[in-house]
Amino acid sequence: MSTLNQLDTPFVAVDLDVVENNLLTMQKKADSACLKLRPHTKTHKQPWLAHRQHELGAISITVAKLDEAEVMLNAGLADIFIAYPLVGDSRAHRLAALMVRGLIPTVSIDSHISMKTLAQAAALAQKPVRVLVEVDTGFHRCGLAGSGVTDLASAIAKEPGLELAGLMSFAGHIAGNTNQDRIAAIIAEDDEILGRHKDDLLKVGLEIDTVSVGGTILSHNLDYLKYATEIRPGIYVFNDMGIVRSGAATVDDCAARIWATVVSRPGPERAVLDAGSKMLSTDGPLDGSYGYVVGHPGWKIARISEEHAVVEFQDGSGAPDIGQRVQIIPNHVCTVINLQNSVVGVCGGQVRATLPIMARGGTH
Amino acid sequence: MSTLNQLDTPFVAVDLDVVENNLLTMQKKADSACLKLRPHTKTHKQPWLAHRQHELGAISITVAKLDEAEVMLNAGLADIFIAYPLVGDSRAHRLAALMVRGLIPTVSIDSHISMKTLAQAAALAQKPVRVLVEVDTGFHRCGLAGSGVTDLASAIAKEPGLELAGLMSFAGHIAGNTNQDRIAAIIAEDDEILGRHKDDLLKVGLEIDTVSVGGTILSHNLDYLKYATEIRPGIYVFNDMGIVRSGAATVDDCAARIWATVVSRPGPERAVLDAGSKMLSTDGPLDGSYGYVVGHPGWKIARISEEHAVVEFQDGSGAPDIGQRVQIIPNHVCTVINLQNSVVGVCGGQVRATLPIMARGGTH
Repeated sequence: MSTLNQLDTPFVAVDLDVVENNLLTMQKKADSACLKLRPHTKTHKQPWLAHRQHELGAISITVAKLDEAEVMLNAGLADIFIAYPLVGDSRAHRLAALMVRGLIPTVSIDSHISMKTLAQAAALAQKPVRVLVEVDTGFHRCGLAGSGVTDLASAIAKEPGLELAGLMSFAGHIAGNTNQDRIAAIIAEDDEILGRHKDDLLKVGLEIDTVSVGGTILSHNLDYLKYATEIRPGIYVFNDMGIVRSGAATVDDCAARIWATVVSRPGPERAVLDAGSKMLSTDGPLDGSYGYVVGHPGWKIARISEEHAVVEFQDGSGAPDIGQRVQIIPNHVCTVINLQNSVVGVCGGQVRATLPIMARGGTH
Repeated sequence: MSTLNQLDTPFVAVDLDVVENNLLTMQKKADSACLKLRPHTKTHKQPWLAHRQHELGAISITVAKLDEAEVMLNAGLADIFIAYPLVGDSRAHRLAALMVRGLIPTVSIDSHISMKTLAQAAALAQKPVRVLVEVDTGFHRCGLAGSGVTDLASAIAKEPGLELAGLMSFAGHIAGNTNQDRIAAIIAEDDEILGRHKDDLLKVGLEIDTVSVGGTILSHNLDYLKYATEIRPGIYVFNDMGIVRSGAATVDDCAARIWATVVSRPGPERAVLDAGSKMLSTDGPLDGSYGYVVGHPGWKIARISEEHAVVEFQDGSGAPDIGQRVQIIPNHVCTVINLQNSVVGVCGGQVRATLPIMARGGTH
């Protein structure tokens, strides 16, 4: 059995005890708030973790792509929310093929064209597709606003093979905020907008059972929700500096760390680590750093290239020697995990597993 | 035989005719300037392309990691420059193991600690290691400056098992410049600094045969070099918008394109593509866009999340319908290729190969 210090850097170590605690904490929060938990598996991309989330009480899972759904279905997960608008004949055929193999799909859409794609899949598979209408609550990515929501929902309700299940949103504009009042306001507004659309649907005789909201920061602030029926946090399984900055987790709650080595000390003011953008991604920087070097708040990963991270020392102390190993908590763990072929599973500081990132890559 | 339009998005299509032309052009430039070409394979991470570069006249290849060296050695490439400071016992043992299997290594270092690692490898393998001293010519990443260069070179020359081959630099601060005079000045300064250090070495009786400089932009501007003996371009095999902006390539020279589909048109001012940061990376943005949408200079990929790219239309025309497919030239192709499990090889618009990115991931 090897220890982490015997592994060559860079690699991602995932503390499985911290993961388990994160899963339990979130499930408890969801249960206390009487909300269903449907975690987004795009963060971990590992079927065994999806099963663990389900065992602990999640109603099932969320994915972003058909290829992710296929990996999860291959691993025995059937009830899957594909939180992405599917478009075109090929996707209809692929979705139908998964349904024939047992997939129980929910899909979110924001256009009549996507609706036709789902209807085509339902007809091909001779099975129903649950559908959520995506609502833009302020992030301005996908999603409808105004009367477009009721229009599309009404069309879905009339479409053979489709079941109008409800509404969904992703308030991605929460990210980056550190002010708790601002975070609370965004969460409340997201929920209220969905609630208004739900009321509009009732006025035209459409009853829905699902109001689905997303995100780990939101899911740690459930007191502000009135209309939501389910939450779709993803990052909470590992957490990252984006979540820590928002106040929704601490550094100790961060389960995934990039191990790196100081490989160069070209001057007194800087060191170079062997984990660059192909390990850390270029997401961020947050507070002037491409990740938090654990135990060294005065160090900043100021610049990053593919295989190098240039650390600058802002406190004038603690500068490391060549060969010293450090641990980095990433700014955005989802993109870091997606860069890995596998990560190292750790219990009590010991290497216990090589965990393949089975759903990395792939198409929509 | 499938056409590109039959493949689900997102995927990376590599035009193999453009690649071949890029390889020929660079080899011709190097030959005309009497410079050796040692291409950096971190861009393509595909042994067959490394072999093609070698067949066309490259003296051999450059890699960034021991794991990349191993993939290339496994594919029959033996003379490999590892342009990265190796540190520690484990790396010494891994390098020695590759040398026993036939690797003829050159390694660049900037510290006595790395020198000891290489000496350890040489002793273990009972074979010599060629060594280049990395010089900081203004990028301020790795590399020594001042008298440190001669000090380390002198120590290497005395170290059993090591052969002092010369000096190397990477003038990464060229990137981002569009002014040709500024680019020329950086290239000339990089070369002159190396030349001065070469002269300093001569003064203490150390003759070197190699002065190695890096980068595609530099390698398209060889007139400014006086001391360099070899160039290490990487990106030129595919090119990207970073190279196009520098004036060293045109859009038509860009061989790798991300194919994506418009999946949402939530409002008249924007569209959403199904290629996000897990396809395009977050490198950049350049000129306000996370990649160039071919044929649509007025479209900007203004925001990006993991699976979504939000396109804004700056010319008020040509807004697409849901389902339309687009091609994107990435800002930085190296990180895009590293995100793929495989790419699609294309000749004359027809799909001709699935090309695995064999050297993606891995440790130093």
